[in-house]
Amino acid sequence: MTIAFLGAGNMGEPMARNLLRAGHQVRIFNRTRAKAAPLEASGATVASSVSDAVRGADILITMLANDEAVHETLLGAPGAIDALRGDAIHISTSTISVRLSKELAHEHGRRGQSFVAAPVLGRPDAAADKRLWIIAAGTRATIDRCTPIFDALGRGLSVVGEQPWQANVTKIAVNFTLAAALEAMGEATALIRKSDVEPRVFIDVLNALFGSPVYENYGRMIADRAFEPAGFRLALGLKDVGLTLDASRDLTVPMPMAGVLRDQFLSGIAGGLEDADWSAVSEVAARHAGLT
Amino acid sequence: MTIAFLGAGNMGEPMARNLLRAGHQVRIFNRTRAKAAPLEASGATVASSVSDAVRGADILITMLANDEAVHETLLGAPGAIDALRGDAIHISTSTISVRLSKELAHEHGRRGQSFVAAPVLGRPDAAADKRLWIIAAGTRATIDRCTPIFDALGRGLSVVGEQPWQANVTKIAVNFTLAAALEAMGEATALIRKSDVEPRVFIDVLNALFGSPVYENYGRMIADRAFEPAGFRLALGLKDVGLTLDASRDLTVPMPMAGVLRDQFLSGIAGGLEDADWSAVSEVAARHAGLT
Amino acid sequence: MTIAFLGAGNMGEPMARNLLRAGHQVRIFNRTRAKAAPLEASGATVASSVSDAVRGADILITMLANDEAVHETLLGAPGAIDALRGDAIHISTSTISVRLSKELAHEHGRRGQSFVAAPVLGRPDAAADKRLWIIAAGTRATIDRCTPIFDALGRGLSVVGEQPWQANVTKIAVNFTLAAALEAMGEATALIRKSDVEPRVFIDVLNALFGSPVYENYGRMIADRAFEPAGFRLALGLKDVGLTLDASRDLTVPMPMAGVLRDQFLSGIAGGLEDADWSAVSEVAARHAGLT
Amino acid sequence: MTIAFLGAGNMGEPMARNLLRAGHQVRIFNRTRAKAAPLEASGATVASSVSDAVRGADILITMLANDEAVHETLLGAPGAIDALRGDAIHISTSTISVRLSKELAHEHGRRGQSFVAAPVLGRPDAAADKRLWIIAAGTRATIDRCTPIFDALGRGLSVVGEQPWQANVTKIAVNFTLAAALEAMGEATALIRKSDVEPRVFIDVLNALFGSPVYENYGRMIADRAFEPAGFRLALGLKDVGLTLDASRDLTVPMPMAGVLRDQFLSGIAGGLEDADWSAVSEVAARHAGLT
Repeated sequence: MTIAFLGAGNMGEPMARNLLRAGHQVRIFNRTRAKAAPLEASGATVASSVSDAVRGADILITMLANDEAVHETLLGAPGAIDALRGDAIHISTSTISVRLSKELAHEHGRRGQSFVAAPVLGRPDAAADKRLWIIAAGTRATIDRCTPIFDALGRGLSVVGEQPWQANVTKIAVNFTLAAALEAMGEATALIRKSDVEPRVFIDVLNALFGSPVYENYGRMIADRAFEPAGFRLALGLKDVGLTLDASRDLTVPMPMAGVLRDQFLSGIAGGLEDADWSAVSEVAARHAGLT
Repeated sequence: MTIAFLGAGNMGEPMARNLLRAGHQVRIFNRTRAKAAPLEASGATVASSVSDAVRGADILITMLANDEAVHETLLGAPGAIDALRGDAIHISTSTISVRLSKELAHEHGRRGQSFVAAPVLGRPDAAADKRLWIIAAGTRATIDRCTPIFDALGRGLSVVGEQPWQANVTKIAVNFTLAAALEAMGEATALIRKSDVEPRVFIDVLNALFGSPVYENYGRMIADRAFEPAGFRLALGLKDVGLTLDASRDLTVPMPMAGVLRDQFLSGIAGGLEDADWSAVSEVAARHAGLT
Repeated sequence: MTIAFLGAGNMGEPMARNLLRAGHQVRIFNRTRAKAAPLEASGATVASSVSDAVRGADILITMLANDEAVHETLLGAPGAIDALRGDAIHISTSTISVRLSKELAHEHGRRGQSFVAAPVLGRPDAAADKRLWIIAAGTRATIDRCTPIFDALGRGLSVVGEQPWQANVTKIAVNFTLAAALEAMGEATALIRKSDVEPRVFIDVLNALFGSPVYENYGRMIADRAFEPAGFRLALGLKDVGLTLDASRDLTVPMPMAGVLRDQFLSGIAGGLEDADWSAVSEVAARHAGLT
Repeated sequence: MTIAFLGAGNMGEPMARNLLRAGHQVRIFNRTRAKAAPLEASGATVASSVSDAVRGADILITMLANDEAVHETLLGAPGAIDALRGDAIHISTSTISVRLSKELAHEHGRRGQSFVAAPVLGRPDAAADKRLWIIAAGTRATIDRCTPIFDALGRGLSVVGEQPWQANVTKIAVNFTLAAALEAMGEATALIRKSDVEPRVFIDVLNALFGSPVYENYGRMIADRAFEPAGFRLALGLKDVGLTLDASRDLTVPMPMAGVLRDQFLSGIAGGLEDADWSAVSEVAARHAGLT
């Protein structure tokens, strides 16, 4: 299959590489062309425009930063959507809002194109090792056609519904749960520090309970206050919390913990932590407790 | 060593049994004598009063329900503390408040007795299988003397400080983190249900991220809305949240997520869920979203 | 002065009438023409289109429902802004977002037009009695030119800055404070009801403290649970809380009470209260406490 | 009537003076005798012990700092309750917990004594000017016998029930509503300051809406950041919030705003504001927004 791949960032680059390894033809485009260049040696074609990448492709995969980037790239003037073949499939792997996902489904639909939302769980190292978990939603037939793609990218697939936005809301809900765990660890660690207990020992105890790499890795960062370099910036964490709040409002679901997260992330940004790793939200609890 | 063991409930009974297996002499007392009786066949002596159990013992272990039970048993009139030998050690394994722990340390100290707080992580099945994790605090010398006891009860030990209350605050912080995870799963699942995504599928995705038995087991209960029989009653969950809030106030640590938990548990109790498993706090988020 | 007045709803109709009384020429437009008709007898010209109303006017006053209505009316295609004279002033009295206010200032600015944001405090009866309080922001010169208009509409004027959006954020902050008072009264009244104290007596006590018509009037509605007919719908209350949260995010100001309000209003809507008066948010606290 | 009056602090002193003016015989006791001395010139007898003050009195009035002071003075060993005549009435005007009020009712009841809870609204200047508002609860007959006392102390009386604790919960609910108004003003003012609007102008607008001396006076303190000297210390504000939370738990009433208040007051104390006026809780919102 010929795949147009838009976005060769930290996530997109290793994903495209795995598609090449699986024998697919990949035409890659990235705004900063230099980021796409290394893929050329692995057999990718580096396109000089979105349209060049997309025209004639069987599949379009997008791995872009946020709603704005996806909206501009697909629906801007000119937008990738108009260069896309009528029988092509767009697989959107970005973490985007429910609203934009619905808009994309509508726009693809009226052009006869297929649309699958397939956001992924995992950091760049997981993308490189084919350990991503894919959350997909779309019609059964379309999902079936995408299976070879998903196989090439990850270790597992959860199909959550026939409406693409259902995959987006699922990703949003997962990220919310993760953010809540960070905040809970942060509040607990502030209590622990004020009790003169070693935070690292507390994290050991937490691991004895949860037995989870998420608690172990983030717990260590929080205990050691090691938030640089950021794996995922705190400012992006606030954006994700915003996606949660938008979904919660549109679906009429009170989510008090999401409200707490919003304020803690805002306080973190007001306190200069926007470029730290999002686990630095734990510093907010510490500062509010008078710890420095 | 001769061990007086007070409290032969769901947790105490298997713990006492493991001590017997390890070759210790155990004198057990339980308010409802019938619960202690089965241990007699395993070699325990069933005492007819707290004083009978405690008098002359090397070690006193308490596994009682809450602050009130511990206070009355130890410091009531007559209290176990006055029957305890001057060179004995009291190991308190209950989840009690920081305040009571400090009071016990003071009262034991002025009698020359040693006090170790050693709350445990794990449910009754873990207690039976010697898979408890023990969080201990006390002087190094006393902790050392307790090692054979801890070895007989659990799979691991975290020594968190020399002040017994430090173990209690650590246990409280761990329980808070767990309660926060339940609430986060509850809010997320309400969002998921209103999105017509199968809750079980969502929990699968969550497991793909967290890889934690805690999220897996509680996630399944929340997805299936299977809250009976209660492993740990919701009303006791509120009590634990109360311990968190007390510690947070006494140590001057704002904990907004603990505040949210308080209100959700209260709403659960107001809605008739006090005897359901504490993971039924997830029903509160569902009800507030208009799901029934 | 010739005034184009867009929006003859519950607020706009009495405001336009007062402008007529003060001797201004008023050309009124309302989507539902029947609502504007009664003003014809008082001397207004009822325009058959936005453009007809706006063309050639010295002043454009808008009193429209929300951001969407203002955006479409002013900046849609065709938008009132393009029919407006280059030296005219637009006075926006609606409660709109900071973002839209900034966009309007920008669009008017590049056409050489003047823009004043002048949201008002007061219900329809206050509008009829010229008892509105006007919160205005814009350049000093423009505000000065608007003085006769403001004099004709209200009992007082607070000029809060030279940037029009400053008036909008001030209105948003005032509405937030009012919503917080409703929620606080609601929670307190739930406590009072569960204490078997008469809510009306509690409101008397509250009035003895606050001495405020706001607490008195809303307090009575809450005590009597009299939420119909709605003076201001609960669903609109959520919209206002949304404006607060948007401003708080854009200005990086954590506002935990706004977060609480969001969830309580959402719970109210999930519980079927969207068309009740927004003081019915107090019912949410009651329901969460098990009162019905 | 012979009145024993315990507590000649900022509130008690002017209250006792008004009782003397009304012609009552007053025997006053204060731990720091010097504070009671000025009342001697006005005709009071200064007692040298609690028992001396209480013995033989018709009425006992207490105006003490908190639960601890009331508990120790009444129920300590020796406690005032045992010196009190069997047919005497105890009027407790302090802001105390529901629990202590119930305990006092029980203890007085089994001695045949009458008990009325009558907490007051108003600051020391209102006490001096007989402008207190009295919230009373007790049996109708007892309340009737207290009427001359209430007349001598305040401008109004609300009888809220026959159970004394109902007056205490009412006072607690009023104080909560007031604290919520302070926090709301604080959050709103942080938003206003970050919008470069003058806080004083914002408070003017707020007054135009609320028309309440409470919003006016506290609003000015918040706008001017004038928190010294404290009329009511922030640390006492946290104590009051604690009374709210205790009542809300005991009565099973979720109160999310009370939870927010708890955390903001804790953060204020962690930030060194415990001795500032409790309206300094507004500084917490400012600090969390990065304002200094």
